[in-house]
Amino acid sequence: MHANGRLEGIFTPNLVPLDSAGAINESELRRYVDWLIDKGVHGLYPNGSTGEFTRFTVEERRRIVEIIADQVAGRVPILAGAAEANVAETVRACEYYHSLGVRAVAIVAPFYYRLGPEAVYAYFREIARHTPVDVTLYNIPMFASPIDVATVSRLADECERVVAIKDSSGDIPNMIRMIQAVRPNRPDFSFLTGWDAALMPMLLAGCDGGTNASSGVVPEITRKLYELTRAGRIDEARQVQYDLLTLFDAMIQESEFPDGFRAAASLRGFRMGTGRQPQSPAQSVDLESLTEVLQCLLAEHGLVDEPTGGCPPGAPVELAGVEISSIVDNVLAELGRRGVG
Amino acid sequence: MHANGRLEGIFTPNLVPLDSAGAINESELRRYVDWLIDKGVHGLYPNGSTGEFTRFTVEERRRIVEIIADQVAGRVPILAGAAEANVAETVRACEYYHSLGVRAVAIVAPFYYRLGPEAVYAYFREIARHTPVDVTLYNIPMFASPIDVATVSRLADECERVVAIKDSSGDIPNMIRMIQAVRPNRPDFSFLTGWDAALMPMLLAGCDGGTNASSGVVPEITRKLYELTRAGRIDEARQVQYDLLTLFDAMIQESEFPDGFRAAASLRGFRMGTGRQPQSPAQSVDLESLTEVLQCLLAEHGLVDEPTGGCPPGAPVELAGVEISSIVDNVLAELGRRGVG
Amino acid sequence: MHANGRLEGIFTPNLVPLDSAGAINESELRRYVDWLIDKGVHGLYPNGSTGEFTRFTVEERRRIVEIIADQVAGRVPILAGAAEANVAETVRACEYYHSLGVRAVAIVAPFYYRLGPEAVYAYFREIARHTPVDVTLYNIPMFASPIDVATVSRLADECERVVAIKDSSGDIPNMIRMIQAVRPNRPDFSFLTGWDAALMPMLLAGCDGGTNASSGVVPEITRKLYELTRAGRIDEARQVQYDLLTLFDAMIQESEFPDGFRAAASLRGFRMGTGRQPQSPAQSVDLESLTEVLQCLLAEHGLVDEPTGGCPPGAPVELAGVEISSIVDNVLAELGRRGVG
Amino acid sequence: MHANGRLEGIFTPNLVPLDSAGAINESELRRYVDWLIDKGVHGLYPNGSTGEFTRFTVEERRRIVEIIADQVAGRVPILAGAAEANVAETVRACEYYHSLGVRAVAIVAPFYYRLGPEAVYAYFREIARHTPVDVTLYNIPMFASPIDVATVSRLADECERVVAIKDSSGDIPNMIRMIQAVRPNRPDFSFLTGWDAALMPMLLAGCDGGTNASSGVVPEITRKLYELTRAGRIDEARQVQYDLLTLFDAMIQESEFPDGFRAAASLRGFRMGTGRQPQSPAQSVDLESLTEVLQCLLAEHGLVDEPTGGCPPGAPVELAGVEISSIVDNVLAELGRRGVG
Repeated sequence: MHANGRLEGIFTPNLVPLDSAGAINESELRRYVDWLIDKGVHGLYPNGSTGEFTRFTVEERRRIVEIIADQVAGRVPILAGAAEANVAETVRACEYYHSLGVRAVAIVAPFYYRLGPEAVYAYFREIARHTPVDVTLYNIPMFASPIDVATVSRLADECERVVAIKDSSGDIPNMIRMIQAVRPNRPDFSFLTGWDAALMPMLLAGCDGGTNASSGVVPEITRKLYELTRAGRIDEARQVQYDLLTLFDAMIQESEFPDGFRAAASLRGFRMGTGRQPQSPAQSVDLESLTEVLQCLLAEHGLVDEPTGGCPPGAPVELAGVEISSIVDNVLAELGRRGVG
Repeated sequence: MHANGRLEGIFTPNLVPLDSAGAINESELRRYVDWLIDKGVHGLYPNGSTGEFTRFTVEERRRIVEIIADQVAGRVPILAGAAEANVAETVRACEYYHSLGVRAVAIVAPFYYRLGPEAVYAYFREIARHTPVDVTLYNIPMFASPIDVATVSRLADECERVVAIKDSSGDIPNMIRMIQAVRPNRPDFSFLTGWDAALMPMLLAGCDGGTNASSGVVPEITRKLYELTRAGRIDEARQVQYDLLTLFDAMIQESEFPDGFRAAASLRGFRMGTGRQPQSPAQSVDLESLTEVLQCLLAEHGLVDEPTGGCPPGAPVELAGVEISSIVDNVLAELGRRGVG
Repeated sequence: MHANGRLEGIFTPNLVPLDSAGAINESELRRYVDWLIDKGVHGLYPNGSTGEFTRFTVEERRRIVEIIADQVAGRVPILAGAAEANVAETVRACEYYHSLGVRAVAIVAPFYYRLGPEAVYAYFREIARHTPVDVTLYNIPMFASPIDVATVSRLADECERVVAIKDSSGDIPNMIRMIQAVRPNRPDFSFLTGWDAALMPMLLAGCDGGTNASSGVVPEITRKLYELTRAGRIDEARQVQYDLLTLFDAMIQESEFPDGFRAAASLRGFRMGTGRQPQSPAQSVDLESLTEVLQCLLAEHGLVDEPTGGCPPGAPVELAGVEISSIVDNVLAELGRRGVG
Repeated sequence: MHANGRLEGIFTPNLVPLDSAGAINESELRRYVDWLIDKGVHGLYPNGSTGEFTRFTVEERRRIVEIIADQVAGRVPILAGAAEANVAETVRACEYYHSLGVRAVAIVAPFYYRLGPEAVYAYFREIARHTPVDVTLYNIPMFASPIDVATVSRLADECERVVAIKDSSGDIPNMIRMIQAVRPNRPDFSFLTGWDAALMPMLLAGCDGGTNASSGVVPEITRKLYELTRAGRIDEARQVQYDLLTLFDAMIQESEFPDGFRAAASLRGFRMGTGRQPQSPAQSVDLESLTEVLQCLLAEHGLVDEPTGGCPPGAPVELAGVEISSIVDNVLAELGRRGVG
């Protein structure tokens, strides 16, 4: 936590292990949480996009935060995703998570409908008026209504309860615009990036930390990147950022999010189970190939053993350099196709 | 219903009246349903986007279909929106709505996450395997993962339970591609358009009907447009389509969807109450101006009285012609800004 | 030509045959023009996007119009693409084409830079003030700055020289909005669609005609579609539109525009030569496969012979139905990737 | 210049002063070039997007490079924009600029048509085979066909003449992907960013320099930012980047590009004249207001005097912080509207 109370560091948007019946695997989730804290994450962030919050029921979302709050037991702060069907339901979730002792909640802008700035403002203002716990705005324009600079600024000025923004757009100039607009009046306001691919430059540009899916898979690496960057050891940090990008691209672009992260967490020793979104036969085959690529990438960092068949000679880096870049192109195409790009 | 059992005609994606506490106003909903049937809609479609399904709880969505099934009492077929948090929950909703006697359910493609064709296919295939009731695919790429032509075709070929697609993209060539790909093997498959702005050309291009938000406000006009078009009275139909477009643009583009439709339904005599998405002061003012514009547009068709202050001389059409076109531009800009355009 | 002088019918945006040195093949261009007129096109449209105007020099663009004006010799009206580097150069082109006797020029909105409505308005107004010949606005938002409804309306109201819009967006409701905004004050103003995939519905919605790349390949079919639609023979017209869509998709989506059209025109017996945009080896192979598909599609309509190896059993339609729809998906993905979708 | 010959530092994509007749103002251009070199820019880059290359004729583009080569007289390297109508014309321009002694040419990917990776590859490969001078690829997906990572990598591997990429996308992770894919085989390859809003983070992420429109207005500031960043003085560099962003946003977002830059260069004492793209009356008024804002922003850095009426109390920063952020929102909306966002 920053001197003036700002949220700071890497908060892990944790995955949720499932059992063979598709239910929350509580014991594995507890073991996963301990491991993350042990490996150095600064906080936990249940019910994020990585945690597939939309695929659980209201009751399950509550249960996930209960388990995590209980297991964390105050060792690190918790940022709990609290978005529900409407303002009243969301406020109820805020109240409950507050009673569990979370440091703050994170609330994604309204999704499905794409709302304009006035409506996004009205939505968060209404929540801020009734929540008993601090709120982090969650901006992820790829999936939800965007929260623009003027709206962040307006909410920061008017609502004491709004204490941070988590931005997953990856747009660095826009992050700077938000910092410029908000910080003069709100030195306690925190800026967190959710785009692992730009973690180092975001921190150098003024961010306080990140909520990064990669930290649920390689918490050692994100921690190292955070500390090298904070210490101004730019050349070393850059190399870690490059490696993290290769890994992140592989996890995010060869499968439906967050299946690549689930596969990688399995390689780290956790029984993640099958995700809730069904897979076609072709997807299952792809996920197996991806898992092998991931294993080589992780092995390169000494985090797991190589696959029994070994990794391509000349090294995974080469493999990553070449294969992944064309995958990236394909996936950008795919995103464009889905109207996201 | 078409000779071969195809869904056919205009299904109204009904709005949900709320009481002063923000709860479902059951008596007003019943009165609204009777009025719609009386005015000639061919079917009801609860829990659509117009019905703000995402803003209700699981229990409320079920209650809405219960009320409507009870009130309709078999007079017209019901298409019930059944999307829930995941496949298992969605199948449970299908089972329940089936027990209520609906003709079919409509299931929007997965939203929030933007999934690719394989995942969309896997999702619907899994549902189709377990649902006891016919399924209409709901393609609304503006809000949810797109369902592409190859995926519709694949699902139609493999899943008997999948009997229709409701497409809200407004893309006529793409509708033709779907019809070309599906109809040879599935003459019973129905194609419905959710884009009121292109209802006439969609019907002429081969659609079986529509699920049109406007029909919840001016059921007389959508019915007339449907019948003139079906009868090949093109010149008359074109004029009605032009008028409907002006009204549709005013309702959809000057406010957050579906607030313009809620305002217009209020003008038709229903107490719709305040929507669940909070409004900023600026939005409330805008909605009042819009209501006056809508009143003039409806008055022009003899559907309501003019506002006490009267309508602009030279007529609402002029007003519509000029004002609305610049509004359209602004709103397209706004949509673009929200990543929709 | 319409009673009140409106541009009307199908104007062919002609391809430009090249010789083995990559220069304009004048004799083949003359032969091609004769054939098009013979097959019933209502007008010629040199220097359109299909004519690859950006890939020729200033002098070549002038030469193309000279050849066509000379060869047409008044048999059909000519709409000459006249966009040059800036207003002054464009006006000079207008003057020259006027001296050659063209019916009107067509001027695409400024491209490369994406300009807003005010700048687009200022650009066309400045041209309209100085041109001696009628101007058709050319709206193709996929490639150039969009011309929005309010701008068309403003230009139509203020500039007598602006007599038409050619719109290649394929957006039918937007076409209706333009017609509604412009026609009351300018009954002589013409609306032409450049999107062959929606030609029938565009005509039914109120368009006067089209400038359709397909008409340079299958002028018989576009003429037939135009006449059936105008005559209100909807069922027959729809079938022709379906067939045209299949062919159009194949030509536009399996190769870089307009290479598919060039390949198809070659099949119709014209030596189109190699296009000016270089092709990679992979592209050349793809274009050969496409040519075979196109030959089967054209053979199905009796326009050319089947390839020596024959066409797939079960027929090209099947082939089109299946293969093309997945091609469409791929290419939409590709378009999205290029920022077009 | 980097030890291994890499292009390095800030290359100014210079504006072109025009006289009252709209022709190139040669003496003012020479004076402007001297001033830029005097203020520390590392190179000149005529015929870039900032230099409005598309709005000049072929002859004018050549004349601009002639003047600059003559005036620079070897003091700094020149990167000359050489894109013409097609490969043959472009190669001719390369030959001519080579004869004038430029260090390299920069060639934008094909524009108007949006080409896919294979065609972009084929285009540059063909040029690279025939050019006598080194080529910088110019990637500006907002305006031209994108050059993706795999294509850059392929061209770098196959074509010795291709020595750099100028990327104006502002996408830092993608810049890293390009560096990772290219540098192992081509240590001499240079990566330049054209997105001033992210200059510091781009340099920290591994770029060699930039081609930044702002450097034509505030060369002192871009030089300072470059040197502070290179020296690892992150905190100081960050503050300069923040200030540059405010100025850049004002110049790029309140007017059509590059009019804001032309207005600001006028404030620095150069007679830029009226741009070639006509302005509507409303645009002219806007540009006057913008000029005042710019004057206050520049005055704050001691670069020009305050306007006679003075600047808003509390300071231009405040003004910038508030006004600009809402302008940014509007312009993003506008970009979305133009299909760019």
